[in-house]
Amino acid sequence: MGDTPPFDSLDGLAGWAAGLGYRALQVPTSAPGLFDLATAADSQTYCDDVRGRLAEHGLVISELSTHLQGQLLAVHPAYDTLFDGFADPSVRGRPADRAEWAAAQLKLAARASQRLGLKAHATFSGSLAWPYLYPWPPRPPGLVEAAFAELARRWRPVLDAFDEAGTDVCYELHPGEDLFDGATFERFLEAVDHHPRANILYDPSHMVLQQMDYLAFIDVFHARIKAFHVKDAEFRPSARQGVYGGYAPWVDRAGRFRSLGDGQIDFKAIFSKLTQYGYDGWAVLEWECCLKHPEDGAREGAAFIRDHMIRRTERAFDDFADAGVDHGRLRPLLGLSA
Amino acid sequence: MGDTPPFDSLDGLAGWAAGLGYRALQVPTSAPGLFDLATAADSQTYCDDVRGRLAEHGLVISELSTHLQGQLLAVHPAYDTLFDGFADPSVRGRPADRAEWAAAQLKLAARASQRLGLKAHATFSGSLAWPYLYPWPPRPPGLVEAAFAELARRWRPVLDAFDEAGTDVCYELHPGEDLFDGATFERFLEAVDHHPRANILYDPSHMVLQQMDYLAFIDVFHARIKAFHVKDAEFRPSARQGVYGGYAPWVDRAGRFRSLGDGQIDFKAIFSKLTQYGYDGWAVLEWECCLKHPEDGAREGAAFIRDHMIRRTERAFDDFADAGVDHGRLRPLLGLSA
Amino acid sequence: MGDTPPFDSLDGLAGWAAGLGYRALQVPTSAPGLFDLATAADSQTYCDDVRGRLAEHGLVISELSTHLQGQLLAVHPAYDTLFDGFADPSVRGRPADRAEWAAAQLKLAARASQRLGLKAHATFSGSLAWPYLYPWPPRPPGLVEAAFAELARRWRPVLDAFDEAGTDVCYELHPGEDLFDGATFERFLEAVDHHPRANILYDPSHMVLQQMDYLAFIDVFHARIKAFHVKDAEFRPSARQGVYGGYAPWVDRAGRFRSLGDGQIDFKAIFSKLTQYGYDGWAVLEWECCLKHPEDGAREGAAFIRDHMIRRTERAFDDFADAGVDHGRLRPLLGLSA
Amino acid sequence: MGDTPPFDSLDGLAGWAAGLGYRALQVPTSAPGLFDLATAADSQTYCDDVRGRLAEHGLVISELSTHLQGQLLAVHPAYDTLFDGFADPSVRGRPADRAEWAAAQLKLAARASQRLGLKAHATFSGSLAWPYLYPWPPRPPGLVEAAFAELARRWRPVLDAFDEAGTDVCYELHPGEDLFDGATFERFLEAVDHHPRANILYDPSHMVLQQMDYLAFIDVFHARIKAFHVKDAEFRPSARQGVYGGYAPWVDRAGRFRSLGDGQIDFKAIFSKLTQYGYDGWAVLEWECCLKHPEDGAREGAAFIRDHMIRRTERAFDDFADAGVDHGRLRPLLGLSA
Amino acid sequence: MGDTPPFDSLDGLAGWAAGLGYRALQVPTSAPGLFDLATAADSQTYCDDVRGRLAEHGLVISELSTHLQGQLLAVHPAYDTLFDGFADPSVRGRPADRAEWAAAQLKLAARASQRLGLKAHATFSGSLAWPYLYPWPPRPPGLVEAAFAELARRWRPVLDAFDEAGTDVCYELHPGEDLFDGATFERFLEAVDHHPRANILYDPSHMVLQQMDYLAFIDVFHARIKAFHVKDAEFRPSARQGVYGGYAPWVDRAGRFRSLGDGQIDFKAIFSKLTQYGYDGWAVLEWECCLKHPEDGAREGAAFIRDHMIRRTERAFDDFADAGVDHGRLRPLLGLSA
Amino acid sequence: MGDTPPFDSLDGLAGWAAGLGYRALQVPTSAPGLFDLATAADSQTYCDDVRGRLAEHGLVISELSTHLQGQLLAVHPAYDTLFDGFADPSVRGRPADRAEWAAAQLKLAARASQRLGLKAHATFSGSLAWPYLYPWPPRPPGLVEAAFAELARRWRPVLDAFDEAGTDVCYELHPGEDLFDGATFERFLEAVDHHPRANILYDPSHMVLQQMDYLAFIDVFHARIKAFHVKDAEFRPSARQGVYGGYAPWVDRAGRFRSLGDGQIDFKAIFSKLTQYGYDGWAVLEWECCLKHPEDGAREGAAFIRDHMIRRTERAFDDFADAGVDHGRLRPLLGLSA
Repeated sequence: MGDTPPFDSLDGLAGWAAGLGYRALQVPTSAPGLFDLATAADSQTYCDDVRGRLAEHGLVISELSTHLQGQLLAVHPAYDTLFDGFADPSVRGRPADRAEWAAAQLKLAARASQRLGLKAHATFSGSLAWPYLYPWPPRPPGLVEAAFAELARRWRPVLDAFDEAGTDVCYELHPGEDLFDGATFERFLEAVDHHPRANILYDPSHMVLQQMDYLAFIDVFHARIKAFHVKDAEFRPSARQGVYGGYAPWVDRAGRFRSLGDGQIDFKAIFSKLTQYGYDGWAVLEWECCLKHPEDGAREGAAFIRDHMIRRTERAFDDFADAGVDHGRLRPLLGLSA
Repeated sequence: MGDTPPFDSLDGLAGWAAGLGYRALQVPTSAPGLFDLATAADSQTYCDDVRGRLAEHGLVISELSTHLQGQLLAVHPAYDTLFDGFADPSVRGRPADRAEWAAAQLKLAARASQRLGLKAHATFSGSLAWPYLYPWPPRPPGLVEAAFAELARRWRPVLDAFDEAGTDVCYELHPGEDLFDGATFERFLEAVDHHPRANILYDPSHMVLQQMDYLAFIDVFHARIKAFHVKDAEFRPSARQGVYGGYAPWVDRAGRFRSLGDGQIDFKAIFSKLTQYGYDGWAVLEWECCLKHPEDGAREGAAFIRDHMIRRTERAFDDFADAGVDHGRLRPLLGLSA
Repeated sequence: MGDTPPFDSLDGLAGWAAGLGYRALQVPTSAPGLFDLATAADSQTYCDDVRGRLAEHGLVISELSTHLQGQLLAVHPAYDTLFDGFADPSVRGRPADRAEWAAAQLKLAARASQRLGLKAHATFSGSLAWPYLYPWPPRPPGLVEAAFAELARRWRPVLDAFDEAGTDVCYELHPGEDLFDGATFERFLEAVDHHPRANILYDPSHMVLQQMDYLAFIDVFHARIKAFHVKDAEFRPSARQGVYGGYAPWVDRAGRFRSLGDGQIDFKAIFSKLTQYGYDGWAVLEWECCLKHPEDGAREGAAFIRDHMIRRTERAFDDFADAGVDHGRLRPLLGLSA
Repeated sequence: MGDTPPFDSLDGLAGWAAGLGYRALQVPTSAPGLFDLATAADSQTYCDDVRGRLAEHGLVISELSTHLQGQLLAVHPAYDTLFDGFADPSVRGRPADRAEWAAAQLKLAARASQRLGLKAHATFSGSLAWPYLYPWPPRPPGLVEAAFAELARRWRPVLDAFDEAGTDVCYELHPGEDLFDGATFERFLEAVDHHPRANILYDPSHMVLQQMDYLAFIDVFHARIKAFHVKDAEFRPSARQGVYGGYAPWVDRAGRFRSLGDGQIDFKAIFSKLTQYGYDGWAVLEWECCLKHPEDGAREGAAFIRDHMIRRTERAFDDFADAGVDHGRLRPLLGLSA
Repeated sequence: MGDTPPFDSLDGLAGWAAGLGYRALQVPTSAPGLFDLATAADSQTYCDDVRGRLAEHGLVISELSTHLQGQLLAVHPAYDTLFDGFADPSVRGRPADRAEWAAAQLKLAARASQRLGLKAHATFSGSLAWPYLYPWPPRPPGLVEAAFAELARRWRPVLDAFDEAGTDVCYELHPGEDLFDGATFERFLEAVDHHPRANILYDPSHMVLQQMDYLAFIDVFHARIKAFHVKDAEFRPSARQGVYGGYAPWVDRAGRFRSLGDGQIDFKAIFSKLTQYGYDGWAVLEWECCLKHPEDGAREGAAFIRDHMIRRTERAFDDFADAGVDHGRLRPLLGLSA
Repeated sequence: MGDTPPFDSLDGLAGWAAGLGYRALQVPTSAPGLFDLATAADSQTYCDDVRGRLAEHGLVISELSTHLQGQLLAVHPAYDTLFDGFADPSVRGRPADRAEWAAAQLKLAARASQRLGLKAHATFSGSLAWPYLYPWPPRPPGLVEAAFAELARRWRPVLDAFDEAGTDVCYELHPGEDLFDGATFERFLEAVDHHPRANILYDPSHMVLQQMDYLAFIDVFHARIKAFHVKDAEFRPSARQGVYGGYAPWVDRAGRFRSLGDGQIDFKAIFSKLTQYGYDGWAVLEWECCLKHPEDGAREGAAFIRDHMIRRTERAFDDFADAGVDHGRLRPLLGLSA
C-alpha cells in the first residue's frame, strides 16, 4: 500500500526504518526483492534468517501484508485492466486464473505468517460490487447478496488456511473494496458464518473520508480489531466538492490523506480507546501524504506514534480511598438486611 | 407522573383530552378516583365499562402506568420519608411492607392490563444505589452488583406476571431510578436473564438532560422500546451550573423540561427512527414544563404530535426504475458467470 | 425522476396536483401516456392543447424533463444492463444506437420546449467515468480528460439545439452522472467552451449527501442556476456507515432523501440566496422520501414551498434615513475637496 | 426606527396594524403627522384623544420612541452632515444648537410618556467615540473616558426628567451609538452613577451581528431590560466578508437583518428567558428586512410573536409529588437532629 | 486527593517530584508519615525544618490540603460507612465526634499554614444534601436552605481561624460535596456572609464533566479563585451513557479523568484567562488518570504545565504608535471644545 | 507594525533575530535608525552593504514594509491628529502635503526593493471611508465609490513604480484601512483595473477577528497572495462584548491578538493550503500579543513556524500503482472504441 518507501532490499528498508526509530515493519509480500513469499511459506530457515536480519536493526515484523493479492481475489470487470499489473505476468489478462493465483498467494502468506510467529495479517477483501455503491441505477434486488456470497466462497478456504496458521486475517476497510465500512464488514462476517479469523485492520483515515464515526467504530468492533494503520486525513468540503471529489487528483480532493498530525483525526482518543479495550497489536505508520515529503512524514510519524502510546496504569487512581468494606457489609449500604 | 392534569374522574379527564384532539390516554393507577386498580384486575365488566366510557369520547387506553408503585418496590433509606406519601396509608413508615404492597399493586396492574387488552405498561424501576451514582466516595467493589441482584430478585415475579398477561413492562429510564440510562438497562437485563417482558419506555427528555445520544439510543435499543413519552427538554449550561443543577428549582436549572417544541429535542429525527424500525406503540404526551401554562402545553402538544406522525410509504421511491433484472442475470453484472 | 406519481394521463396528474395547490408541473417526457414528445416537437396545436388543458387546472409547465434520455446519452458498460430498460425497445441491447436515439430525443425536447415557450429544461448528463470516482485503482493520467472530451462531443449538438430553442439545459448534479458536483460541472463547462446553454438544476439534496456546502454553491454558481428541485435529505453517519452507505437500501443508508421539512437542509437560507441573486425560475417539488407516504409528502411539500417563497421588497428598509446628500457633497464626507 | 410603514396619520397606521393583529404600537415622535410631541407633552386632552383613537382599533401605545433625537444629542463631526436631516430645520448645520434641541425633545417625550401612562421609552444614546471603535490608530489613553463623561453629562438631566415621569429610558444597543453592547452599557451606567432610569431596549439582531451571546446577555442584564425589539438577523461570513461587511449594502453584507423567522435568532430561548425573569414589557416587532416585502414581514411577524408568547404556568409540574414534609422534619433528611 | 504517589516520607516524595521538574508541592495533611499536622500547628521549628528539607530539592509548599478532613466536617448518613475510614480511629463510627475532630484538624491546618507562610489552603466542603441533587423525589421546600445553613454554621469558625492565619480557604468544587459548582458556591458565600476567606480551588476537570462553561467561570469568579488544580478530563457521551455514567467504573464512564493533554480541556485558554486576571497562585498538577501510567502522567504533566505558563508582557504591543496626545487634546477628537 | 522589537540598529535586530533562529527579516522603512529608505532607493552600495551585514547573521530581507507611509497616503479627517505623528515632522498638520510625502516614500520603497532584489513589499492601503463601515447613518449612494476612486487615483502611480521595480505591493488587509477584507480588496482591484502589482499580504489574525473564513480566502485569492504574516488571534465573544469590543483595551477585547499557538487559528491548514497552491514567499512572524512576553513569543514563534513549514513531496504516494496504461487504451476503460 504505497506506504513502503522504494527500497529493493529488506536490509536497506530495515536500516532506514531503524534510523527513524521504528520498532517493527509491516512487510509487503508482493515485492519479491524485499521478501520471497513462496520460500518463506516452506522454509523455516529463510524465515529465521529474515527475523535475524531485522533483529540486528532492533526490528521485528508486525505483520505480512497481501493487499494486492487480496484485491486480485475479486475484481469487477470495470477494473480488470487497471489491476492487472499487480498480478504475476503468467496470469495477466486471464481474470479467472488470476483469482486462483491470488488465492494461492494468500495461502502462502498464511504459512509464512505461521513460520514467522505472526498473530495478524493485513490485506484487502477485493471487490465485485463496487461500481454499484450508489443506488443509481437502482440496484436490482439480490445483487449485493450475490456479490457477498461469491466473495465469501472465495475467502473461506483462505480464512481456514490462516486459522491453521494461528493468524488473524485483518481486512483494511477501504473504498474500492467490498469491505469498506462497518456495515459491509458485518455483511461479510455473516456470509462467512462469523469465521474467527475474519478481522479488521483499523485505519481511521478511510473512515474520516467517509465521515464515519471512527471512535464509535472502536466501541462497536473492538473485538475484531487486530491490526491498526496510523494514517491521518482531512476532509474539507466546499461549494465545489464533497466526498466524491470531483474526479480530482489527491491533492485537490476535499478528502485527502495527510502525514500524521497534519490531518483532522483525533489520535489521542483512538489510542485511548484501543488501550481501554486492551488492543495488543502494533500501531503501523502508513506512508501516504498528498503534500509533505515522505522523509519528513516518516520521521515525524515515528515520533508521533511514540508520543501517543499509552502505558497503562496498574492501579485505579482512587484506590487509596477504598474503605475496605467487605462483601457482607455492602447490603446495609443499600438499605438491605446484611 | 405529574403528566395528568388534576381531574378526579375519568370522564372529566376524557372529555378534556378529547377536546384537545387526543386519541388515547395513559391511565395512572395510583389515583383511585380515576381508575380502580384492584377492581380492574378482577372484573372484566369494570374494564369493559371503562373502555366503553372512553370510547364515547373517541379515546382508548394506551397503557396503564404504575410509576409510583414501581418506585416503591425499591427505595434507598435516604429517600424513605420523601417517597412514603406515595404508598397506601396502611404501609407507610414500614419499608418492607411497603415493598410488598408495591409488588402486589404491580401484579394487579398486570391482570388489569390483560383485561384491557393492553400490550404495554409504563413504570419506574425503583432504586437502591442512586446515592452512589458519582464515584465519590469510591464505590466498594460489588456494591452495584449487589443492588442489581436484589432489584432483579424483586422484579422477576412481577415480570412473570406481566408475561402471563401478554403485556410488556416498559421502564421509563429516569434519574433517581436504578434504570436511568442504556448501561443500567443492560445491567438489569443481564440480571433478569434477558426477560422478554423487560422493556423500555423511551423518554428522550431524560436523555438530553444526561447529554446522552438519544438518537443512537434508538439504533441500539429499538427492539426493546415498547412505549414512548413525547417530552421536550433543554440543557443550557453556564459558568454557574451544569448537569447537577446547583440544587436549584426546575425553572432555574441548566437542564429543564419544556413543552413540546420549546426545547432542544429533535423529534423529527426521533419519529423518523421509530418509524424506520417499525415501532407500533403509542406516542404519549407527558405534561411537564417549568414555564408554560399546562393548558397551552397540552393543546400545542396534541398538534405537535399529530404533525410529527409519519404514515409510512408503501413503495420505494425508486421502484419505477427497477430494471426487472431476474436473479439469473445478477451474476454477470458482477463479472461472474451466470 | 421518480417524483411524479404513477398517473397515466396528464389530466389525471394535473387534477391531482392542482388539488394540492401546485401552480406548475415539471413534465417528464419519457412517459408517452403523459406527454408525446415527438408530436410536441412538431405540432404547435398539440402544445397549445397541452397548455390549455393544464390551464384549466390553473397550472403551467415549469420545464420538460429528459433525465432518462440524458442518462442514456452516455453509459459506462458496467451499467448497460441496468439502464437498458429506460430506452426505446428498438434500441435496447445496442449501446451505440441507444446513444443516438437519446440524442434525437433530447433534440425533440428542445423543439418541444420552444413550442411550449419554456425557458429551462431538466436533465442528466449521463456518465462514462463514474466507476472511477474513487482513486483506487489509481486513475491513469488522461482518463478523466478523455471521458469529458467524449461527453462534450456528444452534448455539444444537443446544447446547440436548445440554444436555437431559446431554452437552457439544466443538468441535475447527481451521483452516478459525470456531472455530480461543482468541480465536474466546471470541467464540463470548460469542455463545451462555456456554452451559454450549459446550466444547472440546483438540487441541494444531492449536495448534503456529498457533504458539499450547498449555500456557498449558490454564491459561486448562481449565474448558471436556471432550475431548482426542492428536495430534502439527511445525513447521519454512524460507527457502521458513512457516505458510501454500506450497500444498504435507501431507508437504511446514513444519507437518505426525505420529504420537505423532514431533513436537514436549510431551505430558508436557500430561498433567501436565490431571491438575493434574482433567480426567477420555478421551485419544483421532487417527490422522493424513503419513509413518508408520498401523498403526505406531496401535500405538505406544496405548503412548505408556499411558505418559503419570498416576495422581494421594493425599497430598502433604511431609505427613510436617506440624508439626501447629492453627489457633489460626498467628497467632503471623506475629507476631500468637493 | 425605520420600522413603521410610511403612514402619515395615526389612524391609518392604527387601522393597518390592527388588521394584522397587533395589540400595541411603538409610536415614533419624530414624525409630527403621526404624533405631535410638543402638544402631547402639555395636553392631557391630546393624549387621551390619541389613546382613545387607538383604543377604537383595539390598540394601546407600547412606548414612545425618540431614536432620532437621542442620536442627535451626541454626534461626532464625521457624521454631522449625514445626521443633520433628522433635526428640526431651525437647528440644522449648528451642532451645538442641535444637541440642545434634541435634549428638549427628549424632555418633551418624558412628559408625554407620563401623560400617556407609559412605563418605558425607546431611544438611542448618540455617539461621540464611534470612529475609534477599532484600536487603529491606537486610542490615546483617556479618550473613551472623556467621551463617556460628556455623554453622561448630557444624558443626566434627561434621565432625571424621565424619572419624574416614572418612565424608564431604554437604550437600544446599536452599532453607531456609543452604547452598542453590554460593556459600553456598563461603562455608561457607571458614568451616570447607576441611574435607575438608565435601562436597555433589548434587540438581539444587533447582538447576533456582533456575534455576542444574546442569551447570556439576558442572564446578566435582565434587571435593566425594560423594552424589547423582536427583530431577526443572520450572519453568514465567507471568504470575502465578515463582520465589517466590505462596505456592501445591506442585502450583500455577511450580517443582515431579516424578517422574523427568516434569520438565525433563537427566539424560543429568548421568550423563555424573558418569561423566566418576569419581563413584563412589550414585544415590539421591528420592521426591517433586506429581502422580504414589508407587508409579508409584518403579517408573518404578528403571528410569529403571538406563537412565541408564553403564558406562565401557575404551579410547578411536580407539586403533585410534594411529600408534605414540614420544616421540622427537614433536618433528619440531612442526617441532622431535628 | 489520590493525586500524591504512595510515598511514605516527605523526602521521598520531594526527591521524586524534583526529579520530574516540579517546583512546589501541595502537601496533604492526612498522611502523618508525610506531614505531622498537629506538630506543625504548634512548632515553628518543625515547619522551618520541613521547608528547609524541601528547599534542598528546590521545592516549596504551594498549599497544605485537608480534603479528607473537610469532607468529614459534613457527611450525609448514606455515606457514613464509606467515609469513616478517613477519620482518626478514635472517632470512627461516631459522626458527631468525627465532625468535631474534623473541625479541629482544619483549625490546626490554619495555624500550620500560617507558620509555613502559605497564602492558600485546599479542601473540600463536605456535604449534607448530595443525595438530593436530582429533584426526584421532589425536594421539600427549605431542604437545601437548611443544609447550607448548617454547613455555614460549621465552617464559619474554621474560616475565621484561617482569617487569623492570613490564609484563604479554597474549596475544590467537586461532585459529592455540597459546593460542586458556581451556583452552590454562591449559595454558600451568601450563607457565610461573603466571608473573605471563602474562596475557590479551580479544577476544570470537574466542570467539564458537569458540562459547565469552565472558561466563563473564570470571568465570573476570578476574584475568588486562589488555588488551581491542573487536571484534564474528557466527556464522550454515547447511546448508552451520559453524565451519570451508568454506575460504571472510571475507565468505562462517559466522563473520566485523564492525564494532562490527553483530555478535552482547553488549558491554553485557562492559563490565558488566569494570567489576564492576574492570578498569582500555583498551578498544581493533580495525579489522576483512568488509563495512563502515573509515572508517565506525572512526567508529561510537569512539562505540560511549564509549556503553558505565560510570562506577562510588560508593555502593550501597540504602544509604539502612541500619538502622544495629551489630555487637553482628547476632546477635539470627539468633536468637543477643548 | 508593532512587530519589530525596539532595536535602534539593524545589526542589533539582526543579531537578536538570528539568535532565535530566524532566517529573514521584514524591514520597516519608517525607522531611519534601522534602515535609510532614501539612501537605499538611490545607492546600490548601501543596499549591498545592508544585505551583507544581514548575511553575516545568516539572514536575508524578506520584504521592506511601509505600513505607516501607506496609511498616510489616505487619512480621513477623524484620524488626522492620531496618525500625524507617523509623518515626517515637515509635513505634520498639513494632510495634503503629508499624502504627497507618503507617495514619495512609497516610490522610494519601490526603488529600494528593486536594488535589494525583493519580490514583495508590505504595506497598508490607507483609508478614506472607515468611519462609515457600519451603515448607520445610512451611507449616501456613491460614497464608497467616491472613496475607492480617490484611493485608486492615489495608488496607481505607486503601483506603477513598483511594477517598474518588479516588486509586488502586498496590502495587509486590516481594519482601519479601506482594504480590510476580500470584498474591499476586489473593489480596489476593480478600481485599479486589476493592476498586476496590487496584491495581498495574507494575515489570518485580522480575518478571524472579523469572523471571515480565512481558509476559503486562500482558495479564492491565492493568485494574489504574495506575502504572509503568521500572527495568531482568538475571538471569544460573551454576553458583554462581541466583534466591536466595547471600546476596551486589547487585553480585554473579545477579539485579541495572541502569540503563535496561543490563539485559535488553524495554521496547519493554512500552511497546507499555501503549499498546495505553490506559495513561494516568506512566512513572517508578527510580534503582537496582548498577554505573553515578547521574548517568549518571538522564541516560540520561530520554532512554531519551523514546525509548520512543509517540504513538498516530489511524487504522488500512489504512483507505485500506476498501471502504465497508455493513452490509446484509456477509451476502452470508458466503454469507448479505442
